[in-house]
Amino acid sequence: MVQVESNTNAWLHRPDQPLRTREEGPLKGLRFAVKDNIDVQTWPTTAACPAFERTAPAHATVVQRLLDAGATLDGKTNLDQFACGLNGTRSPYGPVPNAFDPTLVSGGSSSGSAVVVARGEVDFSLGTDTAGSGRVPAGLNNIVGLKPSRGLISAHGVLPAAQSLDCVSIFARTVGLAARVFAQAVAHDPQDPYSRELPLVTTPWPAGFRFGVPDDLSACDAPSRAAFERAIEQLKAQGGTPITFDYQPFAEIADLLYESALVAERYAAIRRFFDEHEADVIEPVHGIVGRGRAYSAADWCEAQVRLQALSQRARAAWKGMDVMVVPTMPIHASIADMQADPVALNRRLGAYTNFVNLLDYAALSVPTGLRSDALPFGVTLIAAAGMDWPLIELGQRLHHASGLTQGATGEALPPPEPLPLHEEPRVRVAVVG
Amino acid sequence: MVQVESNTNAWLHRPDQPLRTREEGPLKGLRFAVKDNIDVQTWPTTAACPAFERTAPAHATVVQRLLDAGATLDGKTNLDQFACGLNGTRSPYGPVPNAFDPTLVSGGSSSGSAVVVARGEVDFSLGTDTAGSGRVPAGLNNIVGLKPSRGLISAHGVLPAAQSLDCVSIFARTVGLAARVFAQAVAHDPQDPYSRELPLVTTPWPAGFRFGVPDDLSACDAPSRAAFERAIEQLKAQGGTPITFDYQPFAEIADLLYESALVAERYAAIRRFFDEHEADVIEPVHGIVGRGRAYSAADWCEAQVRLQALSQRARAAWKGMDVMVVPTMPIHASIADMQADPVALNRRLGAYTNFVNLLDYAALSVPTGLRSDALPFGVTLIAAAGMDWPLIELGQRLHHASGLTQGATGEALPPPEPLPLHEEPRVRVAVVG
Repeated sequence: MVQVESNTNAWLHRPDQPLRTREEGPLKGLRFAVKDNIDVQTWPTTAACPAFERTAPAHATVVQRLLDAGATLDGKTNLDQFACGLNGTRSPYGPVPNAFDPTLVSGGSSSGSAVVVARGEVDFSLGTDTAGSGRVPAGLNNIVGLKPSRGLISAHGVLPAAQSLDCVSIFARTVGLAARVFAQAVAHDPQDPYSRELPLVTTPWPAGFRFGVPDDLSACDAPSRAAFERAIEQLKAQGGTPITFDYQPFAEIADLLYESALVAERYAAIRRFFDEHEADVIEPVHGIVGRGRAYSAADWCEAQVRLQALSQRARAAWKGMDVMVVPTMPIHASIADMQADPVALNRRLGAYTNFVNLLDYAALSVPTGLRSDALPFGVTLIAAAGMDWPLIELGQRLHHASGLTQGATGEALPPPEPLPLHEEPRVRVAVVG
Repeated sequence: MVQVESNTNAWLHRPDQPLRTREEGPLKGLRFAVKDNIDVQTWPTTAACPAFERTAPAHATVVQRLLDAGATLDGKTNLDQFACGLNGTRSPYGPVPNAFDPTLVSGGSSSGSAVVVARGEVDFSLGTDTAGSGRVPAGLNNIVGLKPSRGLISAHGVLPAAQSLDCVSIFARTVGLAARVFAQAVAHDPQDPYSRELPLVTTPWPAGFRFGVPDDLSACDAPSRAAFERAIEQLKAQGGTPITFDYQPFAEIADLLYESALVAERYAAIRRFFDEHEADVIEPVHGIVGRGRAYSAADWCEAQVRLQALSQRARAAWKGMDVMVVPTMPIHASIADMQADPVALNRRLGAYTNFVNLLDYAALSVPTGLRSDALPFGVTLIAAAGMDWPLIELGQRLHHASGLTQGATGEALPPPEPLPLHEEPRVRVAVVG
C-alpha cells in the first residue's frame, strides 16, 4: 500500500534505500524522483489511482538509462490522477501544495515531481507532459521544466495519458542540469511505438533572433502580465526582437485537446481499467476520460482534419519568428479555489500550454522573475520538434540573467554550464518544385 | 449527366473544347486528363458515383497550377468508385480494360487516368493514391506512376478517400515528363489541411546504392516473379546491391488499412453523403466504407499504436538499404475473375502497395519489362518522404535501360531528360544525445 508523506503529499513511494545501480557515470552523485506513472521495477505504480496499483515488472526505459548513467533514484511522486490535470489537486493522496505558499496549487499533473525539485529534496525529477504537465508546475514553483520534442525520450514503461502526444519531461533547478539529464535520456527505443530518431539541430539561434509574443494575454492576471512584460525586456536584453503573432489558431488548437474527439485518446490509454473500475476514478478525471468513450473513429478523423487546418494557420505565425515565448501559466490559484471550480480554473492554467504537443513543438519553461506578490513566474520558449538544444541554449541565458535563486531553496544559481551547441552553417536542404 | 465513351470506359467527361488558360509555360503543348475525384471548375465531379455528381465551384489547386503552367486539360477519367479499389472494375460507368488486353483489368482506382496515358490519348494525367491507386494501374499498363510524398501536391479540391493518406499522383509514359509535371505541381497550399512544406533531398543515391528486396514474393505469379528477378538484375546493372529484408511488418501494416479502425477514414471522407445515400454506393465499396462506421475513436487510437509499433519494426529494415524495390503488382487479373472475387483478388493486387502511404514514403512505379506472356510488368521504388527526386533519378535510369516502348503506343522512349539533382554533400544534421 502506498504511504504518503503527510507534509507535502509530494512523495507516493520513498523507500529507505534509494535505488542506485552504477557508481560511475555522467549523472554520478545526482538524486532524482519519478512521477508515479513511470515504472520502476518492483515498485508500485499507481498513477494516483489506488485501484490501479500494480507492481512494475521492469524499469521504464528512461529510468534504466538514468540509473545506467549513475543517478540515484529516491522515490516516486504524486500526480493528478492518470496525468489528467494541470493543477496538482486531482489526487486521492491529497493535493500537493506549492513550494512557495502551501495554500496555493503546485500545478500538475507532475505536481510531486516539481515540488520535490523546488524544495531541494532531489536534484532533478521526471514528469510527463501531454497538455502542459511538465511546464505549468515548473512555472508555479520557480524551477526549469524541459518538455522535449515528442518521441525523443522513450515512454516505454510509462503509463500513457494520450499516447501520441505524451512526452517524458525533466524538472531541475537549472537549465544546465536539465540539459545534462536530457542528453542521457534521449535515445530511440523501438519498444515505444512513438519513439523517433529525430535529427536535433545543434546551432543556436542568431544573436538577433526574433521571438514571437502572443497578441492575446487576456488569460493572465495583472501580476503575471507585468511579469511577462518584464520577461520580454529580458529577452530583448539577450539580443531578441519581439514580434507579436495572432494567438487565435493556437487557442483553437488548445481547445481541441479536450473539446473534440481527441479526448478519446485518454480513454483509449486506460480503456480496460476504466471500463471495469469506473467508480474508482475520481472527478473530474472520470468525467473527462469518460467523454472520450462516446466518439466514433470518424469523429476522430474529422477532429484531425480540423487540427491540421488550424495547423496551417499556426504555421503562418512562424514566418516572422525563430522562437515563440508565452507565459508558462497565466495565474496562481489557491487549492480552495481550484477545488471549488476544478475544470474552468484548470483550463485557465493551460491557456498557453495545450497546443504545444498537438503541433509537435519542443518547449522549455524557465523562471524569469518573481511577480509583484513575490510568487514565481516563468515563460515557456517554444520551437519546432528537433530544436531542443537551441531552446536550452537560449533558456539558460535567460534564466541566469534573471537574478533568481534556485527553486524554493534560496540558493544562488551556479554558473551556466557548457552546452553541446556549435556555430555551424544551418542545415542544408534544398527545396525544389 | 456524365456520358461515357463506350470503347474503353476511360473517359467520364471529355468536352469538345479542351481547357487551356495559358498559351505559354513549362508545360506548353502538353495535354492531360484528371481522375474524376479532382475538381475542374464548371465540370461535373462524380467520383464514379452518379448520385454524388456535383458541379465543381473551382479548380482543384493542382489543376490550377498545371493550367497556369500552360498544359491543356482534355477531360476527366473513370475510377473505382470513391477511389476505393485497385482494379478498375468498381465503377457504374463500366470496367476500364487494360491497354494491352481488353479482357484484363486496368488496375485502379485511377483506372481511366492510367489507360488514357498508356494509349497515347494524352501526355500525362493525374490520379490519386491512398493504397496504391497511382501505382498499380501504372504497372499494369506499362507507364510511369509517381506517388509523391504526402502533402507535396495540394489535395485542395480533391475528394478525400482517406484524407491523411491521400496523395495526388502523376501518370506519364516517361519518368522525365512525370518529373516535369511534378516540379510544376508541388507547392505548399494552406487550403489543404494535410499540405506540407517538406524539404526535398536533391542529391542522388551514391553509385553503389543498396536496394532492399522483400523476402516474401509469394503473392506473385510465376511470370511476375521471373520479371521481378530480371528487374533486380537491371538494378544491379545500374550499380545497386540487393539486400533482402523482412517483409512481414510491411505486410502487417498493409493489412491495417482495411482490417482495422483505420478504414473509418474512408467513411469520414464521405460521411454525410454515405449516411443519406447508402443505397447509391456500389459493392464492395459500400461494404468497405460502411465498416468504417462502427469503429470508436478509441479503436482508432489503438490501431494507430499498432501501426506505430509495426513502424518501429519497419524502420529496422532501412538500416541496410537506401531504397526499397517491390513488384508494383504481383499478378495480372481478368475482368471476369475480378468481378467474381472482387475483394480477395483486389487485396492481392495491393500486396506491395498498401503500406507505403501509412509509413509516409514516396514511391515511383516504373516499367522494367514485359513478362513471359508479353504483359506489362513494373517495379516500385520506395524511399522516405522527401526522397522524391532521388527516386526519379534512379527510376529514369532504370526505365531507359529497359528497352521498352512507351505505354501501349509502340513508340520508342525519347532520350532521358535532365533532372534538377546535384552531387552535393548530404544533409548536415547532427544527432546529439
